[in-house]
Amino acid sequence: MDKRLDFIFRRRSIRQYQPKVVPKEDVKALLEAGMAAPSASNLQPWHFVTVTDRAKLNSLAAAHPYGKMLAQASLAIAVCGDPKASERYWDQDGSAATENILLAAPALGLGAVWLGCHPRDERKAAIRKVLEIPQNIEILSLISLGVPAETKPSRTQYSPDRVHEDGW
Amino acid sequence: MDKRLDFIFRRRSIRQYQPKVVPKEDVKALLEAGMAAPSASNLQPWHFVTVTDRAKLNSLAAAHPYGKMLAQASLAIAVCGDPKASERYWDQDGSAATENILLAAPALGLGAVWLGCHPRDERKAAIRKVLEIPQNIEILSLISLGVPAETKPSRTQYSPDRVHEDGW
Repeated sequence: MDKRLDFIFRRRSIRQYQPKVVPKEDVKALLEAGMAAPSASNLQPWHFVTVTDRAKLNSLAAAHPYGKMLAQASLAIAVCGDPKASERYWDQDGSAATENILLAAPALGLGAVWLGCHPRDERKAAIRKVLEIPQNIEILSLISLGVPAETKPSRTQYSPDRVHEDGW
Repeated sequence: MDKRLDFIFRRRSIRQYQPKVVPKEDVKALLEAGMAAPSASNLQPWHFVTVTDRAKLNSLAAAHPYGKMLAQASLAIAVCGDPKASERYWDQDGSAATENILLAAPALGLGAVWLGCHPRDERKAAIRKVLEIPQNIEILSLISLGVPAETKPSRTQYSPDRVHEDGW
């Protein structure tokens, strides 16, 4: 692993958190990271729903089949997209924004995990209800965040059989 | 902008390059970064085609409507996905891998820009032909890379009207 890129390799899926609040300035920093993502034609078709309300976090934990850890998380961010703003690319742009937030987390002393929502209608419907997200807005992902209560080593998953030089 | 996250804010779309080769170890580091991305159920449904051959880079420049800069780039990476490995999430996973490579570039002294391919069939067909990518493999993005001949300041595009607290 190239040591210059540890800020990438140290992003791991963190699902165990301490019962500590994420400072407001760190929530802002995570959103700055998300909105620093590239987007097709720079249309920035994204919206972010931040959730710190305990009852809503608990409801989200029940709304997503792999979301149990949200009942311990002190912050969730739903990354949404407006298909009217970018019909073809809202999901790719939202994925880049999601990844930026995931990479920002360890630099702020936080841990995070990406919960897939789109294109699963039942997950989107359940989250939409909890967060009152309008029907015309897509829900790409849900990010669970908190101060970590577990550590995992940096890693790449580099595999030479996925690399093709100068053609397949 | 939170200074702890400059590794994210300094990623800008770089389209002008010096006529310098990207060292082999940096190509490897970029691929390590791509494959460090999260993927749904950790299925890692990605493939990466690296291109340093001058004639092929020139052909790619002609194959993508916004790809002119590839004629000056010393490296391109086509980020591909195998829908058989992950039908629902190959494009989101590939987007996270693409973003990782874009963020790795400045840390290695390189500049990069994301060229959208999927879901535009005509772009995918043209690139598929140049790189002989099999029909069953999707082409998500093409990344143009090189030693920068332009600089751009760090930035976020933070906009408070895209933030919704504890519900829309």
